[in-house]
Amino acid sequence: MTSERRPSLAVVGATGAVGTVLLGLLSSRRDVWGEIRLVASARSAGRTLTVRGEPAEVVALREEAFDGIDVAVFDVPDPVAAQWAPIAAAKGVVVVDNSAVFRPAEDVPLVVPEVNAPAARIRPRGIVASPNCTVLTLVNGLAALHSEYGLTELAVASYQAASDAGQRGVDTLREQIRQVAGTGVGEQTGDLRAVVTEHGPFPAPLALNAVPWSGSARADGWSSEELGLRDQPRKILGLPDLRVFATCVRIPVVTGHSLAVHAVFEREVTRARAQEILREAPGVVLFDNPEAGEFPTPNDVVGTDPTWVGRVRRSLDDPTALDLFLCGDNLRKGAALNIVQIAELVAAELTPAG
Amino acid sequence: MTSERRPSLAVVGATGAVGTVLLGLLSSRRDVWGEIRLVASARSAGRTLTVRGEPAEVVALREEAFDGIDVAVFDVPDPVAAQWAPIAAAKGVVVVDNSAVFRPAEDVPLVVPEVNAPAARIRPRGIVASPNCTVLTLVNGLAALHSEYGLTELAVASYQAASDAGQRGVDTLREQIRQVAGTGVGEQTGDLRAVVTEHGPFPAPLALNAVPWSGSARADGWSSEELGLRDQPRKILGLPDLRVFATCVRIPVVTGHSLAVHAVFEREVTRARAQEILREAPGVVLFDNPEAGEFPTPNDVVGTDPTWVGRVRRSLDDPTALDLFLCGDNLRKGAALNIVQIAELVAAELTPAG
Ligand SMILES: NC(=O)c1ccc[n+]([C@@H]2O[C@H](COP(=O)([O-])OP(=O)(O)OC[C@H]3O[C@@H](n4cnc5c(N)ncnc54)[C@H](OP(=O)(O)O)[C@@H]3O)[C@@H](O)[C@H]2O)c1
Ligand SMILES: NC(=O)c1ccc[n+]([C@@H]2O[C@H](COP(=O)([O-])OP(=O)(O)OC[C@H]3O[C@@H](n4cnc5c(N)ncnc54)[C@H](OP(=O)(O)O)[C@@H]3O)[C@@H](O)[C@H]2O)c1
Repeated sequence: MTSERRPSLAVVGATGAVGTVLLGLLSSRRDVWGEIRLVASARSAGRTLTVRGEPAEVVALREEAFDGIDVAVFDVPDPVAAQWAPIAAAKGVVVVDNSAVFRPAEDVPLVVPEVNAPAARIRPRGIVASPNCTVLTLVNGLAALHSEYGLTELAVASYQAASDAGQRGVDTLREQIRQVAGTGVGEQTGDLRAVVTEHGPFPAPLALNAVPWSGSARADGWSSEELGLRDQPRKILGLPDLRVFATCVRIPVVTGHSLAVHAVFEREVTRARAQEILREAPGVVLFDNPEAGEFPTPNDVVGTDPTWVGRVRRSLDDPTALDLFLCGDNLRKGAALNIVQIAELVAAELTPAG
Repeated sequence: MTSERRPSLAVVGATGAVGTVLLGLLSSRRDVWGEIRLVASARSAGRTLTVRGEPAEVVALREEAFDGIDVAVFDVPDPVAAQWAPIAAAKGVVVVDNSAVFRPAEDVPLVVPEVNAPAARIRPRGIVASPNCTVLTLVNGLAALHSEYGLTELAVASYQAASDAGQRGVDTLREQIRQVAGTGVGEQTGDLRAVVTEHGPFPAPLALNAVPWSGSARADGWSSEELGLRDQPRKILGLPDLRVFATCVRIPVVTGHSLAVHAVFEREVTRARAQEILREAPGVVLFDNPEAGEFPTPNDVVGTDPTWVGRVRRSLDDPTALDLFLCGDNLRKGAALNIVQIAELVAAELTPAG
């Protein structure tokens, strides 16, 4: 295949937290792309970034940025995606979007390549959506178990990292850690609010704390993140009646989301067979030998592609249920990697086999 | 009542993390005690601590330490409790024990005063056990809801603080926080294991991490802490068939345990009524207005007595279920406070009303 026949890619939001990881992935994965064009706000236009080992200049987001582009990945705030994804799609560009805007739309597929790759081909609006990072931490492992056992119910508690609130989340946590190091915070007398000066994107101090809130407020006390953990797995797995109970909590970790999951199935499970399924599941690493200190932690998974699954147990009071602990890098599979994988699916479809 | 008629108390483990908080409580609560004798290992004998504003010398644990004592609270490692609680009880001392040793025993009551105070009167072995700290974070809120709705099932994920691994746990986390402050740990390239030199009582680095393990290994992949979250609420609430699914996780918080709970009941629930029940429940504070940033975090509860409950939601796919987030100080209600409360129950029983 000559380089002329390769599809061209626009990376919209190339300067962001997800965009940065995405450029790294494009530089290290098998290269299927012709031109790669970097796009961000007018503030960043003219900056030079590196992709595939070569310098590339950032251009401002405007209609002409999509001229000659086959596929555009969007890693930008929701309002920017809402405005610009349809503009790119109207020009015939296939848009792969990482915002929350298009995930619920019936005429936009929500895709995790290991689970529902064919769905990416049916895109009436020219847009394919990628799930959010907590959902992506969950779904590869659960999809594999679902194929064998038939998933009916999930109770999920999240342990989310600061970096899913972007670079500002990371900087805020880092600064708070510097502020609390060496203080008596968390002892009977120490109060974080006296030491930590900036909450940044979080509603409470995060260092040495746990903050049971992520996303924006929805009816009846729910957060958008918790509703996403119900709506998105339902759509991806094709299980509109899946019962989901979620509580989303942020903890002082820089990168790496974790989930404690109680999963109920139609059929009886065994621990040994569940471990076998997870060992063979695409995009999953089984790391499960607690007696030997083997269980996934966020620190183990940072910078890796798969979802790591451990603490696999058959539930004591329900032979059709499993209890599990899952970890994934929220900036890789949780964001940039899934988008790149979807974009590569589209590229393969656009490229005549040869 | 003259001071002669007041019961005498021995505090066994007075020098420990729980013992220290306990002495503080004894100094600030309504004083029902005659002599208070401080007991620890021979290593600490002769040290002077302060209780009720007065200096008191620590004596070594031996049989004579219980001479003239009515009630003894034990906050010592399991093997020490296993050996010495029966010795004290044989001398007619009522033992209130905080170790894991006696909790499962059928002839030892397991008591949370707000929930099952009368059980403390029936103690064939002269021993009353106090639940562990995760159970104590759970039980006051759930017991109140149970009285109204009839509890049938719990799925629990814990967010446990370092201090329930004793002073060594606190020191380890503090040192790790100092080590990671200012480093790039948790970025794509930063690895905790390169920066953190000591794991202390934890099986993996805890700063900027989440460690899905607490307690010791049991059959089929379970931890003792997770089995405790099933066995102890069953015993306290008198619900031998309660279905419990738990995953226990340690996070980098100094003090303050949190729990994300999915609770299923016999009857339909409403959010408003559940909030009302929790607002009136003894030992519980309702703190639940997420739109206004009101939800409990470990930092809010350190140094306070009650369990704080927030994020109260009726489950979306089950009208008989609630999702909640609870926080409590693991050294106060989670340990020292519950023991003091039990000891005060016993003291009231021993003291002729007057
Ligand atoms: N972080 C995660 O774990 C995660 C996971 C899943 C989904 N997401 C989603 O991915 C998107 C990006 O997240 P992030 O964490 O990378 O955010 P970020 O670090 O704040 O980066 C935002 C990016 O959007 C660009 N941008 C902002 N306003 C723009 C405008 N008006 N026109 C053009 N470009 C604009 C920025 O360019 P400038 O540098 O020029 O401002 C930057 O490249 C969001 O929708 C987020 O919800 C993030
Ligand atoms: N920390 C929590 O959140 C928590 C919660 C619930 C239950 N507990 C339980 O409470 C108990 C104490 O925990 P902790 O965190 O306070 O532990 P800790 O800080 O290590 O204190 C242990 C105490 O036991 C004493 N001790 C140790 N060996 C002894 C011996 N051979 N003879 C006499 N005294 C001895 C120590 O005295 P020296 O100072 O003289 O060594 C010290 O006073 C444990 O059973 C623990 O599982 C703890």
